Amino acid sequence: MVVRDAEASRRRILRAATAEFAEHGIAGARMDRVAAQAESSKERIYAYFGNKDALFDAVFTASVDRTLEAVAFDADDLPAYAGRMFDYFADHPDAQRLTTWYRLERPTGPGLRAVIEANRARVEALAKHTDFAPVALLTLVQAIASSWGTMNPEFAGAASTVDRAERRRTVVEAVRRLTETG
Amino acid sequence: MVVRDAEASRRRILRAATAEFAEHGIAGARMDRVAAQAESSKERIYAYFGNKDALFDAVFTASVDRTLEAVAFDADDLPAYAGRMFDYFADHPDAQRLTTWYRLERPTGPGLRAVIEANRARVEALAKHTDFAPVALLTLVQAIASSWGTMNPEFAGAASTVDRAERRRTVVEAVRRLTETG
Repeated sequence: MVVRDAEASRRRILRAATAEFAEHGIAGARMDRVAAQAESSKERIYAYFGNKDALFDAVFTASVDRTLEAVAFDADDLPAYAGRMFDYFADHPDAQRLTTWYRLERPTGPGLRAVIEANRARVEALAKHTDFAPVALLTLVQAIASSWGTMNPEFAGAASTVDRAERRRTVVEAVRRLTETG
Repeated sequence: MVVRDAEASRRRILRAATAEFAEHGIAGARMDRVAAQAESSKERIYAYFGNKDALFDAVFTASVDRTLEAVAFDADDLPAYAGRMFDYFADHPDAQRLTTWYRLERPTGPGLRAVIEANRARVEALAKHTDFAPVALLTLVQAIASSWGTMNPEFAGAASTVDRAERRRTVVEAVRRLTETG
């Protein structure tokens, strides 16, 4: 029972920390809010996870694992991949925000093994495309797929005229044009 | 002399705050570091600018004004526009980071008049393009132009094989394919 309770407690902390970090980033996150939300305590959080950076890394690693699991990469059909990635970020804005905080606030960390491995495999699979360097193609496709989540807030009013289906269509069509040969 | 000193002091604070916010964001910024760097004091900073959010808004507004001034928009030559935007962000990574912090940390502010006005004028100018909604086209072009600054840190190693000239070429070529008709 003790082991099971500890597991449940860890899960509650991770869930609360995911919401807190997605909303406020690392510097802005408050461990007392995470503790209250998780019905835990700061002492227990630190005992389980170490420090705030380590808790963020646990949250982000889990988010990356879920994303990689949910969004299958396909070097032979990049428009479809971009559409899946668009869907995932539209359904899970927290995942996209965590990625952005990670880039801004943890740029010199050791790097996540899952991310390094996914990048490596993708770049390798993209070698068949000859008009862009594989790294460039991956950069462009990911930027296009996540473009609707990166617009400034002032843009939201104008962008509200474009519904989700049309946003998805523009993403898929943009990547189709990018990868069309001839 | 007093007026001139106050102006110089404001400028030093803005310069120091620009570096501090670009590096650490709003929540992570430390006013005592800004004060030390600007050879000023926290009291003076608050007297001049109000609070931390207001100081960030002053920093970001100035950065947006410089960007809009430096990067001419051209609805008739979007690839060239994207190339200019790429150059600007490559030369001024702080400007891109400030934009990202703004999106993450100030999503519900009143909105910057300069940004709203620039968006409106651009969307209007893009109405001539018929295969994407103007708002969608602007979203895609800006995402592509800033794509190299939005990759995760793990990617830096792989991406180091693509030099700046090649990065610029991929941005311009991607927007050319996007906007090519027929």
